[in-house]
Amino acid sequence: MHIVILAGGVGTRLWPRSRHARPKQFSDITGDGRTMIQATVDRVAPLTPYDQIYVVTGQQYAELTAEQLPQIPKNNIIIEPSGRNTGPAIGLACMHLYKRDPNATVAFIHSDHVMTREDCFRTALQRGAAAAAEGYLVTLGIQPDSPHTGYGYIKRDSVILPAEQGEQPVYRVGRFLEKPDLATAQSFLSEGCYYWNGGIFICRVDRMLAELARQLPEGYAHLQEIGASLGAPNAEEVLLAQWAQMPNISIDHAVMEGAECVAVTPLDAGWNDVGSWDALEVVLPCDENDNCVAKGNLIAEDSCGNIVYSDKTVALIGMNDLVVVETEDALLVGPKSQMQKVKNIVEALKAQGRHDLL
Amino acid sequence: MHIVILAGGVGTRLWPRSRHARPKQFSDITGDGRTMIQATVDRVAPLTPYDQIYVVTGQQYAELTAEQLPQIPKNNIIIEPSGRNTGPAIGLACMHLYKRDPNATVAFIHSDHVMTREDCFRTALQRGAAAAAEGYLVTLGIQPDSPHTGYGYIKRDSVILPAEQGEQPVYRVGRFLEKPDLATAQSFLSEGCYYWNGGIFICRVDRMLAELARQLPEGYAHLQEIGASLGAPNAEEVLLAQWAQMPNISIDHAVMEGAECVAVTPLDAGWNDVGSWDALEVVLPCDENDNCVAKGNLIAEDSCGNIVYSDKTVALIGMNDLVVVETEDALLVGPKSQMQKVKNIVEALKAQGRHDLL
Repeated sequence: MHIVILAGGVGTRLWPRSRHARPKQFSDITGDGRTMIQATVDRVAPLTPYDQIYVVTGQQYAELTAEQLPQIPKNNIIIEPSGRNTGPAIGLACMHLYKRDPNATVAFIHSDHVMTREDCFRTALQRGAAAAAEGYLVTLGIQPDSPHTGYGYIKRDSVILPAEQGEQPVYRVGRFLEKPDLATAQSFLSEGCYYWNGGIFICRVDRMLAELARQLPEGYAHLQEIGASLGAPNAEEVLLAQWAQMPNISIDHAVMEGAECVAVTPLDAGWNDVGSWDALEVVLPCDENDNCVAKGNLIAEDSCGNIVYSDKTVALIGMNDLVVVETEDALLVGPKSQMQKVKNIVEALKAQGRHDLL
Repeated sequence: MHIVILAGGVGTRLWPRSRHARPKQFSDITGDGRTMIQATVDRVAPLTPYDQIYVVTGQQYAELTAEQLPQIPKNNIIIEPSGRNTGPAIGLACMHLYKRDPNATVAFIHSDHVMTREDCFRTALQRGAAAAAEGYLVTLGIQPDSPHTGYGYIKRDSVILPAEQGEQPVYRVGRFLEKPDLATAQSFLSEGCYYWNGGIFICRVDRMLAELARQLPEGYAHLQEIGASLGAPNAEEVLLAQWAQMPNISIDHAVMEGAECVAVTPLDAGWNDVGSWDALEVVLPCDENDNCVAKGNLIAEDSCGNIVYSDKTVALIGMNDLVVVETEDALLVGPKSQMQKVKNIVEALKAQGRHDLL
C-alpha cells in the first residue's frame, strides 16, 4: 500500500500554536514530543516502507516537512503551488504515483488527525485496501459518538466484505450527506447506519484517475499535462501554469459523491481531527480533577475541567472548564465551549496588521 | 529632610512576578518601565537631594538596590542582616542617621507603594515634617475610601497645625486601632475621623531613638552597640552579633502605640500598597471595556474587567473579572476576587520543592 499524507492546511482555530509559518501538523499539539505529522507517519509506518509514504503540501512547508520527516525520501514530498482543496491535491498525488506504479493502491490520510487506537486505524486501512483492490473507492466512515453538525455524513448500504474476526464489514455507500442540522444529526445517530466523513480514502490510483477524467474532465486535462512533464526539465514550469487554472474543489464534490463503486469501512479508532483546543481533553488523559495538561506543570487551586498547553508552570485559582494556551509570543484564555471563537481573535490580529502573530 | 525607604519585604501575593530573588519592589509591577523602588525614589526626589535618601534592605538585595538606584550613594544602602519587622529596621536606620546628623528629620516610607497623586504625597510629608520638627512622631493617615479590614486604623484627635491653603490639618493621634472587623470598619468610615495606618512615619531621629530607649530598652541596647561600631573595622561583626538578639517587632507595637506626642497627617494621594494583583485596576487606567493592561497587548473578545500583565499578546475570549499574569517561567489565571489565594499557590510550590519558582 502507498500512503499519501495531505498536509496543506493551516488550522486557524489552534492559534496561537498553529501559525501560517508553522501550521498545527508541524507542531506538537498533544504534548507527546512529536509533531502531528510525525505521529501520523509513525502511525502508518507498520503498514508500508517509508519510500511508499508521500506528503502533499505547500512550497512554504517543504523544508519543514523534510526536516521533520527525514525518513521519507525528499522526492516523496509533492508540492502543490497553492491550496486548491483536496480534489486537485489528490489528483496531483495520483499523477506522481501512477508514474511510479500504475497498479498502486493508495490511502489518502491527513497530517493533523489523532487516533487513540492506532491498531484499529491500521486494520481499517487494510480492510479498505482489500475493497480498493477490487475497484472500489473506499472511504473510512468514522463511528459517530455524538450528533456532530460540523461533519458530512456517509450512509452505508449493503455489505461488500462481511465482518471477519474482530473486524468490521465493508459496506457499499448509500449516499454522502452534507453537514446536517442538529435534529437530522440526532436521527442519523439513532438510526446507526451513518458515519462521519473524515476525508480518509483508499483506492487504486487508476480508478481515482478514471473518475477524475470522467467527472472533472477540465481538471484532469491539467493533471495530465502535469503528469506528462514529471521528470522533464520544464516540470515546475508546467506545474505552475496548469495549477493556476485548476479548480478549487474538494475530492468529495469532485469525485466521491458521483463515483461508481464507492465503499465505506467503519473506523472506530478514537479518531479526532483536533479542530479546536477543546478537542484535547478527548484525545488526552485527564487528571483526578478532570484537568487535561497537554504541556506544562499545572498547579490547580479549586480548578477543574481545564485544558492547559504551556511551556511554563500554570497556576489556576478557581477556574473551571477553561482552555489556557501559551506559546512564545501569545497567550489564549477562554472557556472550552467558546473555542470556535479563536478565529475571531485571528481576524482581529489580521485587522491590526499583526502578521507576526498569524 | 532625610528619607529612608524600607525595602526588606518579599510580597508573596504578587507571585509569579514577585520572587524571593526579586521581590515586587525590584520589579516593574505597574508597567511604567520603572521598578516600584525606582518610582518611589523619583516620587520623593523633589523633596531632598539623593545623598539624603537611604534604603534599608536585606543583604541579598543590596546589589539589586545599587543597580536599580545608581543615583543613591552606596553608603546609603543600609543592610539588615535578617528581617526583624519595621521596629529594628527603623531603629537601625536611625543609628546611621544620628551619626551623620543628630538633628535630622526623617521620613520612613515604603519601597512598594503606589501614589496616583504624587504632589499630595510630597505635601503631606512636608506637613508631617513641620510637626516632626516640633517633636511629634508623625504618621501619615490614609484617607479611607472603603471599610477595609486588612489595615490598622488611626483615630485622630485635636488639631495641632491648622489647615493651610489646599493642605489638611495635622492632628494629634487619638489612638491606634488593630485591623477591625467589617462592622467596625464601616463605623470608622462613617464617623470620618479615622485613617488607615499605611506605615509611613516622619520624625526627628533623636525623638525616635528616645522612644526606642524608653519603650524597647533591650532592643535599644543592641542598637547602641551597633551605632557605636559604625565606621569601625568590626562594624559588620557587631551588627551580626547584636542583630541576632534583636526582637522581631513592628514600629507600631514597639514605639508608635505607646509614644508621647504622636500626630497624624491626612494623606489623600491615591495611595495603594499593591498587596495583590487586583489592586492594579485601582492604580492604573482601564480601557473602554474596563480591562486594565499593566503590560502586554490585549485582544479582548467579549471580555470585560480583566487585569493583564504579560510580555505577550494576550487573547481573552468570554472572560470577565480575571487576573492573567505571565512571567518568564509561570502563568497565573484566577478571578480578581480570589487573588488572596495566590499565597496558596506559593505554598503548593514550596511543598513541591519548586524553589526555582519562589
